[in-house]
Parts: sequence; C-alpha cells; structure tokens
Amino acid sequence: MTTCADDSSATAPRGRTVTLDDVRAAAARIEGAVHRTPVVRSRTLDAAAGAEVHVKCENLQRVGAFKFRGAYHALSRLTPEQLTRGVVAYSSGNHAQAVALAARELGTTATIVMPADAPTAKLEATAGYGAKVVTYDRWSESREEIGGRLAAEEGLVLIPPYDHPDVIAGQGTVALELIEDAGPLDALVVPVGGGGLLAGSSAAATALVPGIRMIGVEPAAGDDTARSLAAGERVHLPEVPRTIADGQGATAPGELTWPINRRLVEAVALVEEDEIRAAMRFAFERLKLVMEPSGATGLAALLAGRVPDLPRRVGVVVSGGNIGVERFTEIMAG
Amino acid sequence: MTTCADDSSATAPRGRTVTLDDVRAAAARIEGAVHRTPVVRSRTLDAAAGAEVHVKCENLQRVGAFKFRGAYHALSRLTPEQLTRGVVAYSSGNHAQAVALAARELGTTATIVMPADAPTAKLEATAGYGAKVVTYDRWSESREEIGGRLAAEEGLVLIPPYDHPDVIAGQGTVALELIEDAGPLDALVVPVGGGGLLAGSSAAATALVPGIRMIGVEPAAGDDTARSLAAGERVHLPEVPRTIADGQGATAPGELTWPINRRLVEAVALVEEDEIRAAMRFAFERLKLVMEPSGATGLAALLAGRVPDLPRRVGVVVSGGNIGVERFTEIMAG
Repeated sequence: MTTCADDSSATAPRGRTVTLDDVRAAAARIEGAVHRTPVVRSRTLDAAAGAEVHVKCENLQRVGAFKFRGAYHALSRLTPEQLTRGVVAYSSGNHAQAVALAARELGTTATIVMPADAPTAKLEATAGYGAKVVTYDRWSESREEIGGRLAAEEGLVLIPPYDHPDVIAGQGTVALELIEDAGPLDALVVPVGGGGLLAGSSAAATALVPGIRMIGVEPAAGDDTARSLAAGERVHLPEVPRTIADGQGATAPGELTWPINRRLVEAVALVEEDEIRAAMRFAFERLKLVMEPSGATGLAALLAGRVPDLPRRVGVVVSGGNIGVERFTEIMAG
Repeated sequence: MTTCADDSSATAPRGRTVTLDDVRAAAARIEGAVHRTPVVRSRTLDAAAGAEVHVKCENLQRVGAFKFRGAYHALSRLTPEQLTRGVVAYSSGNHAQAVALAARELGTTATIVMPADAPTAKLEATAGYGAKVVTYDRWSESREEIGGRLAAEEGLVLIPPYDHPDVIAGQGTVALELIEDAGPLDALVVPVGGGGLLAGSSAAATALVPGIRMIGVEPAAGDDTARSLAAGERVHLPEVPRTIADGQGATAPGELTWPINRRLVEAVALVEEDEIRAAMRFAFERLKLVMEPSGATGLAALLAGRVPDLPRRVGVVVSGGNIGVERFTEIMAG
C-alpha cells in the first residue's frame, strides 16, 4: 500500500512560532463554526490503561477530523480579495475535505489536487462539499507543481495541511478545549503526522499546564518524528511508510511544526499495526466510537503500554473517524 | 432468530405513576455514578432528517446503554437489609449487565437469570461485572419461575427491567439531561421495548416543555406499543417478534409503563429492518458512533422519514451501543 503524505513545507511561512495567545485567538475566530467535541470517559479504559483517561473526540468534529479546525481558521484569516480568488490544497485525506467545507462556509471556492487513483468515496466527498477536484497521476506528476501552478496562474492561496501558523493555531484549540473541560492533565497523548496537531496542542497545553508531558504517537512504520527527536534534527524517511494509519504517512516533520515539537514534546511513542487494530476494536466495542486507524494511534499507545511511566491524569486525542464500514471490516479481519 | 423480551410485569408495583419530581430525585441520587452522556450534533444528519437534531448518546453510557440509569437508581433505593440479601434479575440483554454493575458498585450481589444459549460474550460480560449467572433452558423452563423462586427462597429483591417506578424514574433522567443541554425541543424520539425509557422520558419532558411531541419508535416486526395505542389498550403480540433490534423484543407494553405512555405519547413510528441497518451504517460512517440495532431505531425513524410532520427542533435518544464487531459486520452484510 502506498499512502500520500500531506507535505507542503516548501510554501510555509518561516520563522514564526505559535503561542497560547495565538491558539486562544484561533478559538475565538472559529467558535460556532467548529464543534466543541465531547471528552469521553470510560472506567473500562481507565482499568485497561492504568490511568484516568480523558478522550477528546475529534472523530466527532465536522468532516470527521480535527483538520477542520486549522483549515477553517486559516481561511477565516484571508482578506476579502483573497477569498474572491479562492484557495487551493493538495491532499488525499481529511485536509482536503476540511478545506473544501471551510471554503464553502466562508463563501470562497476551493480547488483540491488529489491523486486520480484516490478512493472514489474521497473524491466524491470532497466534490460533495462543493470543491473543484483536480486529479493528477501520482506516478508521473507532482502535486506540488500542480498546486504551485494553480496558485501562480489563478492567484489561489495555498492552504498547507500543517506547515502554516494559522493551521497550527487552529489545531491547538483541541488541547485548549480538552484542558478547559478535563482540568489540568499530567500528560497529553497526540497522534503525529506532519505534526500540526501536536505542535498546536503543545503550544497551548504547556502554557496552560506547566510541566504537562507532551507525548506524540506514530505508527512504528512511519517514525520520522521519533527519529528526528532522537537525532535532534529533522530526519527524512527514505520512502512513504506502509501503514494502515494513512493519515500519518508524512516522511518528515514539518518545517514549522518541527521546532515547536522539538522544544515542547517529551517523546514520541511508536505503535505496531496490530496495536492500532486492537485499539480500533476496543474503541468500537467498549467506547462505541468509530476511529480511523490514524485516529486510534493515541489510544493504541495507552492500551499497549507504549507510554513509559504513564502518570495518573492523561488526555488522549482521537484525531479522526473517517473510515467506511467495508474498510473497517477489512482491517478488523486483517 | 428468537429474541427474549424482558418482561416482568407480573411483579410490578401497581397503581403508581412517575412525575418530573421523581425523575429529578432520581437524577440527584445517580449523579456521579452515571455518565452525563454527550448530546451530539451533525449538519449532515440535520440535512438528511430535515430538522435540527440533538442526539443523546446513551450508547456512551456505562455498560453501553441507558439501562444502567434505572438499575442503579432502583438499587440505590433499597434498604441496607435488602442490600445484604442481594438482588435478582432476568434478562439476556443490557438490563442484566446494568443490574450486575449497579450491584457491584452498591456493595450487594446480583443473581442474573439468563438463557443457557445466550451468547457467550453476554454471559461472560455479566459474570465479569461480578454477578452470579444462573442459566435456564429457554424451551422447557420459565425464567419468571426461576426468578420468583430465587426471590422467595433467598430473599432476593427482583429488579424488573421496566415495570418499576424507580426504574422508570431513572430512565427519565435521559430526557431531563437532554433538555437541560439542548434547550426546549419540539419533539423527542425514543426507542420503545417495554416502554420504561419512553415513559420516564415522557414524564420528564412533557412537564419541562409543555406541548413537546413524544414519539416512540418500534421495529415494524414488534409493534405492540403502536397497536396498543391504536386499540386504546395493551395489545399482546402472539409471538416474540423477529427483528435485529433484540432490545425491543417485548410482546406487550408494561403494566406500569403503558398508562404513562398512553397518556403522554403522541404516536409510535415503525421502522423496517433495512431502515435500522441503514441507520447503523449512517451512525458509523457519518456520526462515528456505534449503535446496536435497538439503539439505532430512533435515528432510523428520522432518516427514513417515519415521523410525520417532523418539527424543527428534535431530540433523539440512542438507547445503546452493545454490539460486537463480528455481529455488526454480519448485519451490515445483511
């Protein structure tokens, strides 16, 4: 299986970090457009994890993933003139739908560059939100080039999936809400792809709760952030990781997310494919929640004991729930 | 498929109704022991239903169903002497686990009478909550007799699944919370088995929101409450209904729930098996929620347009989410 990592670091604004104030400002801007998702508790989960676990359900977010927060926030900060021209994004995943829906709600048009062989359901869902979908051949064309050309020729604003301060600040509202609802936590466990959710969450959480331990989680097959932390610099994986967690297929930490995560994140836990599967089953049967594989990696780390010295009060972010019944069945049988 | 309806009306206390005050008192007693479950919104659902829908997620309740509210409340009202002797219930479904867990938490012992051919998972789950499980042969023995004998010989208190004012008042806290969180609603859509959830919810909701339309939902194959409303008296179905909604297998309205529902419920909508399946799929793929078939019938009624003249602000109760991955897959393949 080949997955397509969202990576648009080439276009990222540079030299900007994200602070709690940025996250608070983002929360104020997106209020009303974005669901305040519930924080779920389960004594069965507490017993299995050996901690008091607060589950932040971004699978119940609009478009089924936290991505809508960052996308909506970034678009809400565009000028009227930029909104008249429209936006462009390249993504085969949740970012595509997030930008499409945010564009519709903010009265602009989104062009989404997606691989021609993306699942029909994803192409249709993106088009269903009113976006113009431009397909490309993953083996012979570069989406960066296509996106760049569209941006240049048609004056569209490129909305990157993580390497943008407004996107990162928007994702940070996940941690802001979680801590407001659950109170101070000893640790926060967050799935990592390009690192936007982790960076925004770390910016908010470490300022709100000094001493909180920030733990990222990656599939073992795609451990670029773990390796980068170990090396002290951004490590690029030689190839796109093979994992069911297709939302975590980045091959390197983002340019903008990396310095934030390097500074604020204690460690990245790694989970095996079977542990992700087991967490998805646990979520279904015990929590009654649908999690896509990437969305379940935080839970997997807790259930499989992959977070060393787990403290008492732990938050975990379920980053998304976009998976069809048939694909879910396939993974469960896997 | 044969389902076992929870029916213990023979032992019900008589001549008592349930009021908003009873429900409020129940809410105060069970606070802390019972989850205040989230109310979920989805614009996709709103568009599909043609209304503003507030989804009360009792699938996220402890033991995975609203049943824990009534069971815990009933047990919490027992005397110390009664708690010393213990309780008994007969159920092959969620009531069994609810009584088992409530008993453990309140420091008493539960004996649960279950059919010997109940799914191993259900037998184990019930025993897992610390209950003593007594099995019987569904074809040659009567669970009422066994339960009655245990009650008489060992001095156990029988906890009926719906025909008890404390159980009904406990279930009514679902509607109380929903209206506190969502504000006044124009209609409330509630699955009906024996009618405890509907009766308690109706008692609370109609007192809180005068004019609110109470709509029950049954599988078309098990339409005893719908028939009873049409006839103006309790109608007994000649046989146990064949439906995937095995939590709604009652063959007649309860003795105590019926007079309440007859007075306060406007109508009972009927849903077909395929509509229940479609609602479970919608819940999975769009709401990211796991619903057991009975739990999804309210949603099915909304999605299939089975509630006539649906008003603008509608609450719907998801009554439970106890279904394994394999059974879910089977039903989806259906």
